[in-house]
Amino acid sequence: MKEIVRKFSAERDWDQFHNAKDLAVGIATEASELLEIFRFKSENEVEAMLKNPKSAKKIKDELADVFYFALRFAQKYDIDISTALRTKIEANARRYPIGKAKGSNKKYTEFGP
Amino acid sequence: MKEIVRKFSAERDWDQFHNAKDLAVGIATEASELLEIFRFKSENEVEAMLKNPKSAKKIKDELADVFYFALRFAQKYDIDISTALRTKIEANARRYPIGKAKGSNKKYTEFGP
Amino acid sequence: MKEIVRKFSAERDWDQFHNAKDLAVGIATEASELLEIFRFKSENEVEAMLKNPKSAKKIKDELADVFYFALRFAQKYDIDISTALRTKIEANARRYPIGKAKGSNKKYTEFGP
Amino acid sequence: MKEIVRKFSAERDWDQFHNAKDLAVGIATEASELLEIFRFKSENEVEAMLKNPKSAKKIKDELADVFYFALRFAQKYDIDISTALRTKIEANARRYPIGKAKGSNKKYTEFGP
Repeated sequence: MKEIVRKFSAERDWDQFHNAKDLAVGIATEASELLEIFRFKSENEVEAMLKNPKSAKKIKDELADVFYFALRFAQKYDIDISTALRTKIEANARRYPIGKAKGSNKKYTEFGP
Repeated sequence: MKEIVRKFSAERDWDQFHNAKDLAVGIATEASELLEIFRFKSENEVEAMLKNPKSAKKIKDELADVFYFALRFAQKYDIDISTALRTKIEANARRYPIGKAKGSNKKYTEFGP
Repeated sequence: MKEIVRKFSAERDWDQFHNAKDLAVGIATEASELLEIFRFKSENEVEAMLKNPKSAKKIKDELADVFYFALRFAQKYDIDISTALRTKIEANARRYPIGKAKGSNKKYTEFGP
Repeated sequence: MKEIVRKFSAERDWDQFHNAKDLAVGIATEASELLEIFRFKSENEVEAMLKNPKSAKKIKDELADVFYFALRFAQKYDIDISTALRTKIEANARRYPIGKAKGSNKKYTEFGP
């Protein structure tokens, strides 16, 4: 997938604009467009949107835009996503041990001793 | 990677919190944490941060958090990321034809006829 | 309030960093920190957080950070907030006429004819 | 300004949708729309946009949307913005003492002893 993303940008000579800061802006603004779809909607309405083909298409498109910029960031700065994810999940497993985190929506900083 | 993410959440019984809206909040807030690293930093400073092992580690961690929630969204709502990305890239290729988009940072809505 | 914000920045010689793009990054990242407080929390939990002095303090602090950067943007680029708000509210009143918008969470693009 | 915002929402019976979490989503998504205007633009291009009446209007409109939701949050949850801002600025003045912060874009956590 990184290759698709790289090729699309290279063909358009967009390397000059795709610095790390603007790519981070890209990820954040696309994530926000995904979130905006659900603004002021109840959980039931959101579930209905995921089942409706037209709104489901819009949701997938916005999620794809997030992946586009996130993959482009990883590709441009040579980040192995699989390794980065595993490393972070292991750190999170220490922060959120199953015994404390199971069934809880507390942030790790809120756990008691 | 979807499987790692699914397992981590399942072991902690977090399905009840991981609805689409909160996962979108998750993606947006983590994307913002990545962006926050670059706040008020010049392009040169950002490049230096990417080369410094300590700040590079932080950048990778925040990018991994974005992938965590984006993958979790895709896994939970059965979205094939590869297909969604290809579909969106094709749409973008029509919006940004090479002839008009090459070397340009204009939004497609700003292209002339 | 603009004067407090201007003075705080001027004393620290921060004009050089406070360009429009980074101030927009400032607003977005602080808004995201406010939102992050409510991540994975139910409506009842959020209401309880607003009543609890400790979490209410955190909420106020993050909202203040949003105002800090939004006011700084307006101050630095000479935007009259009151006028800008009135103008936008009038435009929104046309987009969301009471007859169509009352009691509805639809976006104006979703209204029928 | 809080009164304008309150009245606009009350006339449309939007209290039911304007809970704290969705208002925070409102602030964050509007802040992101402001930021999106500057995506992939250089500092010179951003300055030119602020001088161009058409793009300046768009910038003001998006900033107004941020204020709309931020004011609505403050109005609905009885937060005195002026007090919240002063309190936060005082805390920031301790985090960023002039001696250390002057002319620096470091985060307070990066200051040496």
